[in-house]
Amino acid sequence: MSSLDIFTGETIGTAVLILLGGGVCAAVTLKRSKALNAGWLAITFGWGFAVLTAAYISGGLSGAHLNPAVTVGLAVKGGTAWGDVPVYFAGQLLGAMVGALLVWASYAGQFRAHLTDPEILAAQPAEEGMVDQKTAPQAGPVLGVFSTGPEIRNVAQNLVTEIIATSVLVLAILTQSTIGGVLPTDPKGPGVMGALITALVVVGIGLSLGGPTGYAINPVRDLGPRIVHALLPLPNKGGSDWGYAWIPVVGPLIGGALAGGIYQLAFA
Amino acid sequence: MSSLDIFTGETIGTAVLILLGGGVCAAVTLKRSKALNAGWLAITFGWGFAVLTAAYISGGLSGAHLNPAVTVGLAVKGGTAWGDVPVYFAGQLLGAMVGALLVWASYAGQFRAHLTDPEILAAQPAEEGMVDQKTAPQAGPVLGVFSTGPEIRNVAQNLVTEIIATSVLVLAILTQSTIGGVLPTDPKGPGVMGALITALVVVGIGLSLGGPTGYAINPVRDLGPRIVHALLPLPNKGGSDWGYAWIPVVGPLIGGALAGGIYQLAFA
Amino acid sequence: MSSLDIFTGETIGTAVLILLGGGVCAAVTLKRSKALNAGWLAITFGWGFAVLTAAYISGGLSGAHLNPAVTVGLAVKGGTAWGDVPVYFAGQLLGAMVGALLVWASYAGQFRAHLTDPEILAAQPAEEGMVDQKTAPQAGPVLGVFSTGPEIRNVAQNLVTEIIATSVLVLAILTQSTIGGVLPTDPKGPGVMGALITALVVVGIGLSLGGPTGYAINPVRDLGPRIVHALLPLPNKGGSDWGYAWIPVVGPLIGGALAGGIYQLAFA
Amino acid sequence: MSSLDIFTGETIGTAVLILLGGGVCAAVTLKRSKALNAGWLAITFGWGFAVLTAAYISGGLSGAHLNPAVTVGLAVKGGTAWGDVPVYFAGQLLGAMVGALLVWASYAGQFRAHLTDPEILAAQPAEEGMVDQKTAPQAGPVLGVFSTGPEIRNVAQNLVTEIIATSVLVLAILTQSTIGGVLPTDPKGPGVMGALITALVVVGIGLSLGGPTGYAINPVRDLGPRIVHALLPLPNKGGSDWGYAWIPVVGPLIGGALAGGIYQLAFA
Repeated sequence: MSSLDIFTGETIGTAVLILLGGGVCAAVTLKRSKALNAGWLAITFGWGFAVLTAAYISGGLSGAHLNPAVTVGLAVKGGTAWGDVPVYFAGQLLGAMVGALLVWASYAGQFRAHLTDPEILAAQPAEEGMVDQKTAPQAGPVLGVFSTGPEIRNVAQNLVTEIIATSVLVLAILTQSTIGGVLPTDPKGPGVMGALITALVVVGIGLSLGGPTGYAINPVRDLGPRIVHALLPLPNKGGSDWGYAWIPVVGPLIGGALAGGIYQLAFA
Repeated sequence: MSSLDIFTGETIGTAVLILLGGGVCAAVTLKRSKALNAGWLAITFGWGFAVLTAAYISGGLSGAHLNPAVTVGLAVKGGTAWGDVPVYFAGQLLGAMVGALLVWASYAGQFRAHLTDPEILAAQPAEEGMVDQKTAPQAGPVLGVFSTGPEIRNVAQNLVTEIIATSVLVLAILTQSTIGGVLPTDPKGPGVMGALITALVVVGIGLSLGGPTGYAINPVRDLGPRIVHALLPLPNKGGSDWGYAWIPVVGPLIGGALAGGIYQLAFA
Repeated sequence: MSSLDIFTGETIGTAVLILLGGGVCAAVTLKRSKALNAGWLAITFGWGFAVLTAAYISGGLSGAHLNPAVTVGLAVKGGTAWGDVPVYFAGQLLGAMVGALLVWASYAGQFRAHLTDPEILAAQPAEEGMVDQKTAPQAGPVLGVFSTGPEIRNVAQNLVTEIIATSVLVLAILTQSTIGGVLPTDPKGPGVMGALITALVVVGIGLSLGGPTGYAINPVRDLGPRIVHALLPLPNKGGSDWGYAWIPVVGPLIGGALAGGIYQLAFA
Repeated sequence: MSSLDIFTGETIGTAVLILLGGGVCAAVTLKRSKALNAGWLAITFGWGFAVLTAAYISGGLSGAHLNPAVTVGLAVKGGTAWGDVPVYFAGQLLGAMVGALLVWASYAGQFRAHLTDPEILAAQPAEEGMVDQKTAPQAGPVLGVFSTGPEIRNVAQNLVTEIIATSVLVLAILTQSTIGGVLPTDPKGPGVMGALITALVVVGIGLSLGGPTGYAINPVRDLGPRIVHALLPLPNKGGSDWGYAWIPVVGPLIGGALAGGIYQLAFA
């Protein structure tokens, strides 16, 4: 794969991932959306099929990492050259920002309706126990459409949850060539079955391990949209919660490297 | 493929698509349905498995486009001859109308119960914020079983949402031959894995991008049933909202062509 | 396939189908079940994965028809010898009755708790508009765990709905060998992808066309458990609604034959 | 497969199974989880995708039994040497305990919030009819995150339900090589399609047969986390309900052996 293919594939793929993933958060959260309050199953399936769509589109071009934690895990395993890692990262971060902008473009009317609703603005600080006292001034009323945040703010705890959840994801991706049956025929990408299984694994991780922190499990999935939240001139958008921003970056990177290590010890 | 195969396949396939897709809208909307209020997940999975069933049935005959936006995207890519395009369109529009009639045949009792219910008729104009003031006189109480409508009526915004959502769908279809693994063996159709993945992509697009406009993402999916709504002698059915009808036709066609262009630039 | 293989496969397969399909109806209906009120999505996915499990178990033995409408459709197509049809039917009906008994064995405590609950027994006749005035004396409080019943009782309407829904199912099964990609390698059975797709098609038909009659789409799925309901000495079980019993037998048989005819005309 | 591969694969795989399976129970149960009250569909899909992830990760190493009932069924069928059975069991039990510890690590803050909530502690004994009078003093307020328990406590009934549900699961696994289509190419493991189908079968069993006992269908899935519940120094955790503990061990083992016997009689 050329660097251009990697960069193009990761940019387009990650943009689709965040467009659909952020999209489902907008769909169930924002006023005047037909999917308002569709619930946790809708969110987890929405993110899973976002992975499926993005992997399906970009798999043949860049291998569809779409996630720096996956790139790190594959580099530790030896499946991706370390020299390609910065190109992967750059495409992923750019794509995540483009995806967040596309969410805004798709739901601009709903953002406006939500952010100018007097009830929502008044209720924000103490909204249904989801925001800790400490973070209330920082986390804006639509930040959850862009980035993750913990239910209970605790650095060690939040890091541990993200590390565990990400290592399960990356281990499932690293071991996919060891199972019999329908294997990818092309070393570049996950293959169609790999894309499908990975998507369902992401649904499962969301259902099972998303409760405490909202399962970033991907540094750019959180950081890219957070940057866009900070830059977009939305009225009454509130803070971008930068105090938490490093955890969904560092935790998943550790989780990806850990999965690479487990793979080398137990499966290689 | 002969023109007859294309026309037959697209007519049968699109009829099945709209029978099941319109069917799930009837199921969750109409009084005296066992699935009343089954929710957004039911709608999105229902449409996804409608795509699966229709693609599975018609894939070997016509390649299962079932959607003019897909046909346009494939023509831009070069996978479908421009000369076949009108045959595809004709079968798709006819099939969509047949499918809408079959929804009515399957749910005739429920339509009658719904449209003669005094509470529903009285509540219609201001029903739960889903119908804009401006459109209340036009959008009838069962139009949503047939066609889409926006939560917030805004031409530019509604067009943008339909363009973005359709371009994701068509791009996923155009790139399906670039991913490793289980590929279609038959150049005519999507193959069984292609049908499955496309169906789940449609579930994902519904969950993530269906909030603002109800994701037509297919000109005939909206236009065919709207014509049937206008023609069917249902009591108290209300208007067919023709003022909006061009948006779910034009938006998806632009989205399909855009996806064809992206494919040519980045993937070909 | 020998007649013994057909009979054994269909008996075991249909028993599993009804155990899991009737099981999900028990799970969401009966008092003291952990899944009480889990909703329409749970029912439709439960029936779909019941088809998957049953087809997966019996596919290699009998081809996993599990449904006289499928057997009739395949016979019209020419894929099954007419001489084998009675053996298929016998195994299917026996299996459906065994399956219903296994549902009772699995949920015996819940049946007892439900049928001795004073509130449920008192509320039965007018229960939430789901039972027509005319049928109230006939449809018992747990009949829905065994057999289907219409929301609005109308012979012509109910037949039409069952015919349409069944013809979609059988057409999808008959055309499965015409789509490219991963095809069954064994002419006996659906193959693993065929089993999966058929299961998801059944989920889709349930979501989309289950609203009016509860989608029997299979004569033995309704008749076998209804016989068991009539014979089981459950306290306060109420009537077995024999007046409706012929519709979910005749409608699906017509639908299966219709699908066979459409296949011969358009796809053969 | 070497004994080391079996032990390593089963330990890692079962740890992932219980991490994700116990995780979804924590997610929908514990205070301050984003998935609180996400419902029965979330639980059943969560456990199904837990099976998928675990089987996908460990399939190539140990064949991904992950369940003593599966090991027993395969040994009766002749697919696994009886001499390997103790190694399988040991890895599975160790993995289940590790998985339960990882659930606690991922949700430690939520456990603390839940177990120190005055309302939850006060409501426990009579909580929503889910705990029988007899068992109230024994079943603690978070035991359901670790182990299963019956809605209606009845030794014979609970055993029967677990035997029936497990025999369906194991029969589906034993017959997977008899269906045409995409077969495993590697005799060691389930192959990617086998992993996917088995996961959806587990979703189906949960939806259909989980109502009475919570579908352990796996001795270590229940016993391993119960031991961890007994050992973990959680405040106010209540009893571990050891009086019930033998049923989800013995029932599934009988079910697995029964499935092996049915396989030998009808399918071999």
